[in-house]
Amino acid sequence: MRAVGVDLGGTKLAAGVLDDDGTLADYTEVPLPGRDYNLLLDAIAEQVGRVRERRAIPPALGVAVAAWLSPDRETVAAAASLGWADRTLRRDLAARAGLDSVVVHNDANAAAWGEYVIAGRPADGAFVMLTLGTDVGGGVIAGGRLLTGAFGLAGEIGHLQLRPDGPQCVCGSRGCLAVYASGTAMLARARHAVAADPARCPELSGLCGADPARLRGQDLAAAAQGGEPTALAIVAEAGAAIAAASAQISRVVDHHTLVLGGGASAIGPALQQAVTAALTQSAPVGPVRPVPEVRLARAGNQAGVLGAADLASAAQ
Amino acid sequence: MRAVGVDLGGTKLAAGVLDDDGTLADYTEVPLPGRDYNLLLDAIAEQVGRVRERRAIPPALGVAVAAWLSPDRETVAAAASLGWADRTLRRDLAARAGLDSVVVHNDANAAAWGEYVIAGRPADGAFVMLTLGTDVGGGVIAGGRLLTGAFGLAGEIGHLQLRPDGPQCVCGSRGCLAVYASGTAMLARARHAVAADPARCPELSGLCGADPARLRGQDLAAAAQGGEPTALAIVAEAGAAIAAASAQISRVVDHHTLVLGGGASAIGPALQQAVTAALTQSAPVGPVRPVPEVRLARAGNQAGVLGAADLASAAQ
Repeated sequence: MRAVGVDLGGTKLAAGVLDDDGTLADYTEVPLPGRDYNLLLDAIAEQVGRVRERRAIPPALGVAVAAWLSPDRETVAAAASLGWADRTLRRDLAARAGLDSVVVHNDANAAAWGEYVIAGRPADGAFVMLTLGTDVGGGVIAGGRLLTGAFGLAGEIGHLQLRPDGPQCVCGSRGCLAVYASGTAMLARARHAVAADPARCPELSGLCGADPARLRGQDLAAAAQGGEPTALAIVAEAGAAIAAASAQISRVVDHHTLVLGGGASAIGPALQQAVTAALTQSAPVGPVRPVPEVRLARAGNQAGVLGAADLASAAQ
Repeated sequence: MRAVGVDLGGTKLAAGVLDDDGTLADYTEVPLPGRDYNLLLDAIAEQVGRVRERRAIPPALGVAVAAWLSPDRETVAAAASLGWADRTLRRDLAARAGLDSVVVHNDANAAAWGEYVIAGRPADGAFVMLTLGTDVGGGVIAGGRLLTGAFGLAGEIGHLQLRPDGPQCVCGSRGCLAVYASGTAMLARARHAVAADPARCPELSGLCGADPARLRGQDLAAAAQGGEPTALAIVAEAGAAIAAASAQISRVVDHHTLVLGGGASAIGPALQQAVTAALTQSAPVGPVRPVPEVRLARAGNQAGVLGAADLASAAQ
């Protein structure tokens, strides 16, 4: 065993073990016992203890957390979904779990690293992942290394601005990728379509009994997979926004691969194709660049745990 | 001596030597003898030979070239200002100069690395440079390494799209940074102001005898330094575009430092202040990020030579 990985999201705590062969074992998910800081430190320490009972003492712990971190990743500057601010998570966890070697990463960054590991760490090392959930998170790997940034905030791709005059974003800016392509944004558009004219989107309407408030993300995914034009149009709009963001990222890091993850990636090939189609239509810079290869995430919920554990293993 | 550096621009060939203490010596610039490929290989070999006459045989050669390179940087895919395409520059230069160790980099990438070296290779290693000339070039350093990209095209920051409905750009897209902030774009705006109403921009008009065609970039710089409101408004508009591009880059690599170089950076502190002022007004992502530090380039024309030589030295 090389390291334990933990992914602390807004609603669940996941954990697993990175084995010597580089695969993840003993993956478990439990609901968060609450948002209290000390309670969650205990819950994480308990997960680590659970692993210790069965195996040799884990040499390292990697934690992925849905948070903005300080530049040195010692401190959670703010974790909106947990209600935390200014918490010295790395040090506190090291003490609580009785481990010297603990690293903390942003959850989307850790998930990007996990997908990069799953993809076999491609040699060109220019790899970007988007997590399409309530918000849009991201992670950027360039030169084979995870970029964490000068202020701990690399990979905040969901807040690339696509239209200066676009809708207001939760981040305070306007027209960010997140307002077009988050799972929340897509679901809001689907609900609006059902409310406006249920007959024009029979599959979406049928899945929620024509009650927009009952429509869920998985219903939109099902309707898109079923080929419903309204659902596909919503997915195409999100795909075009993702392609526009990818074009911006290309001009900075020139990535080879774009991985789509997070809850809304359950839409599947329809979303992947929408992004690729929009990328193919966009103007490239330079004479030789193909469009990035668009893939669906492979590690699912486990990406953050795998990435955090691998980063902890590498940091030892 | 660690390496020889050469910077091959559209009009001049510059060369110098990276000494053992990390400083650049024997810097020279000569006008290009033409754009013929073989003629220029000879001219570069001659510069290397000139150094060899005075010093121990240089172990390595780094070449910065105004070109789009292949992903492995073996080939110049296209060099618009030189009229080249598909030239195996690295191999041909190694043969012509009689050297095994030759590396080729995009000129703006090499200049960014040169400025990073001059800045003392700051430990956070998140450093971006823009070269404001005929076009806008760029270079991105993240995690202490120069990003070259999966397709050899990292750092094409001049073609970040700021407004999808903006003016047509030479790259085929619309509303790129380059259409707002290149030296060419600023000069065009200054000429337009002189043509429209010379009395409203007396300093600009006086510097060109009220003949817009005679106005040069250095006149715009002088008028801005003199505080002429029209010149300052043009600089402020470019500064706002640079700040908008910097905000996009922040969301990808989260840089600490933004260096302004290229011919138009001769505008000086007025440009630097315009960028900083616009950055300060933009919405940050996250609770803790200060705006990037905006600096004027320090190495001037020598940045590309220094960067190329240092990259060649490191590649040995």
